[in-house]
Amino acid sequence: MIYADYNSTSLLDEEVKTYLTKRINEGIFSNPSSLHALGRHQKYIIENCRKVCAKSLGASPNQVIFTSGATESIAMIFNQFSQEKKEIISSEIEHNAVLENLKLLKKQGCNISYFDTHENGVVDLRKLKTQKIIDLACLMAVNNETGVIQSYLEFAKTCHSLNILSFVDLTQLIGKQKFVFESSNIDFACLSGHKLGALPGIGILLIKNPLELNSLIRGGKQEHGLRAGTENYIGIESLAIVMNNLDSLMKKYSNLENVTIEFEKKLKEKIPNIKIFGDESERVSGTTLFSIPGLMSQAIQIELESNGIFVSTSAACSDNEPETSHVLRAMNIDDKYGRGVIRLSLPPDENEYNQILEKIVSIYLKLSKIGNFFDNREIKL
Amino acid sequence: MIYADYNSTSLLDEEVKTYLTKRINEGIFSNPSSLHALGRHQKYIIENCRKVCAKSLGASPNQVIFTSGATESIAMIFNQFSQEKKEIISSEIEHNAVLENLKLLKKQGCNISYFDTHENGVVDLRKLKTQKIIDLACLMAVNNETGVIQSYLEFAKTCHSLNILSFVDLTQLIGKQKFVFESSNIDFACLSGHKLGALPGIGILLIKNPLELNSLIRGGKQEHGLRAGTENYIGIESLAIVMNNLDSLMKKYSNLENVTIEFEKKLKEKIPNIKIFGDESERVSGTTLFSIPGLMSQAIQIELESNGIFVSTSAACSDNEPETSHVLRAMNIDDKYGRGVIRLSLPPDENEYNQILEKIVSIYLKLSKIGNFFDNREIKL
Repeated sequence: MIYADYNSTSLLDEEVKTYLTKRINEGIFSNPSSLHALGRHQKYIIENCRKVCAKSLGASPNQVIFTSGATESIAMIFNQFSQEKKEIISSEIEHNAVLENLKLLKKQGCNISYFDTHENGVVDLRKLKTQKIIDLACLMAVNNETGVIQSYLEFAKTCHSLNILSFVDLTQLIGKQKFVFESSNIDFACLSGHKLGALPGIGILLIKNPLELNSLIRGGKQEHGLRAGTENYIGIESLAIVMNNLDSLMKKYSNLENVTIEFEKKLKEKIPNIKIFGDESERVSGTTLFSIPGLMSQAIQIELESNGIFVSTSAACSDNEPETSHVLRAMNIDDKYGRGVIRLSLPPDENEYNQILEKIVSIYLKLSKIGNFFDNREIKL
Repeated sequence: MIYADYNSTSLLDEEVKTYLTKRINEGIFSNPSSLHALGRHQKYIIENCRKVCAKSLGASPNQVIFTSGATESIAMIFNQFSQEKKEIISSEIEHNAVLENLKLLKKQGCNISYFDTHENGVVDLRKLKTQKIIDLACLMAVNNETGVIQSYLEFAKTCHSLNILSFVDLTQLIGKQKFVFESSNIDFACLSGHKLGALPGIGILLIKNPLELNSLIRGGKQEHGLRAGTENYIGIESLAIVMNNLDSLMKKYSNLENVTIEFEKKLKEKIPNIKIFGDESERVSGTTLFSIPGLMSQAIQIELESNGIFVSTSAACSDNEPETSHVLRAMNIDDKYGRGVIRLSLPPDENEYNQILEKIVSIYLKLSKIGNFFDNREIKL
């Protein structure tokens, strides 16, 4: 089996496996808010995990809020702006968790505008300087579909100089590139543990000024009173383990860089009409989003799957939509490419590219013989 | 070690331990929203878990929404009422997760009123019929401190007949008493998995009409589009295991009933001035909240702890407050009792009452000799 859907969810980290096996069978389960020794011990472990995560992210421990994942973190951020008529600008290639909140804020009377996106997947940030009033600006550091790295540091620096609050979604960056919150000028950021090999159901909200946060989930003093509810301490511990190994993970992804480039070069040689999205932009290694005109995503996906290779047709969260994704639409990608998209997102320490290359080429040859799928017929939506 | 703080958090269920050990080491981790076979498999498991939980709670699967815990479920419920000037009535003995939301809604312009509570811990529901307009009424089924069972079914029936939406917090009821959502007339209910031996970080929102729910956490189609974010499927699986064994858990708690009664009887014989809160009310078995005038909670707790017995001084979430809890204040309990409270909450299948009895009596004799702690001095707050 080749699992090439890491941008959706990473397989569970091996060190986390070992830790959890022992933890579950021998460790203590107790409420971190209980005053007795078991509770205090659990509370101590959580605070220790917070320090580990903070150190890995270049933040202070009090700037790290544990949540159930990036989606909750995002909801917390936008909750700050729900009661007022705010001016918010965002890219159009953000995750749906961001876009859906923006739709709601628009309904509630906020004014929402969007940056343009170039065909190479890079967001054009010029509106930051030309638009008169902006309260909050949103940009993902790395796009989950294309892997294109945005100039999020320049973005945050500009926001800071213009007195605009900035939110950067780090979900696809962490583990692949070094990040230092303290020097980043970013006000709000988020990430999800399950993208890094931690358990699902745990994530982080990074916030520059934690005292200014309004809670979304209230009722207890957990997380400095900013996120109530008994802590998911098993999730937190699993996250701290992967965050503690972040340097080694980044090194592995860095080593994968040339392999990715070589793979894509060969792919283009073998399939001349293939389109690799964002291939001329700076991207994280391991992610390749491509389309072969005439071949539909599902057909390629099923063929790959029958060969034990698991890929995504776009983002997992919108996998059910047989349409050009909102990311590719923002990049002005024609439907003839957009409906035939396959995303490979590989683990850092395995080199299964040769096998994947071989299979894609043979599938291409096979499906091309059967005929074009959507070039020859009208697609009714 | 005797862990007598189950109302804060249960120890991890033995069957969950066995399951997770295998699951973590041999199972598949994949995004349930991914369209490939691994993702579809994970999605299938979640829906199967939903059916198991729904069956145990007498609900339809579409009425079961997985959340990160009761506190998030509660925030989702009150989020329905945040945009309008609603009339809400609640008991004063609710969990802080409820009370904090009510405070916020009051700030936002809702009108909040409260039922009275009798000294025996039972909420007086008469205002339901005398108050003119009520949009939402809130009542916990079982109080977490006293273990007193409220007449939540009568409450929900009355609400239904008066066209009032009802919210019942089931957190301390499930596992101890049979519950059937379908016939309960309840509109909203919640529970937390970690109180039942599942992992922390997973819970349920039960909702009669799921189509009428506004999301709190948006951006994906998870949980029928009502709660976005990659599912905490490991937590969900652990919850389904304990929910599947709910009948056996309830049977054990039922068997504990006479043991609890006998224990409390002996406690009163040995310590004549002891006060057991709600002792004349219907309570769940396993929970005993008591106070010995003149002895402070912390002193008893530390003595018990040095004997390997772990108890709470009140609810875990307010353990840090050396004050009479809001629950006991609502019951009109004098500070001379309120500041000396110890809560025992025991597991269903272990009978460690004799050992606990012996220790409490010897601690009582020891501390009484040292002298009264707070009767003789002014406490400055």
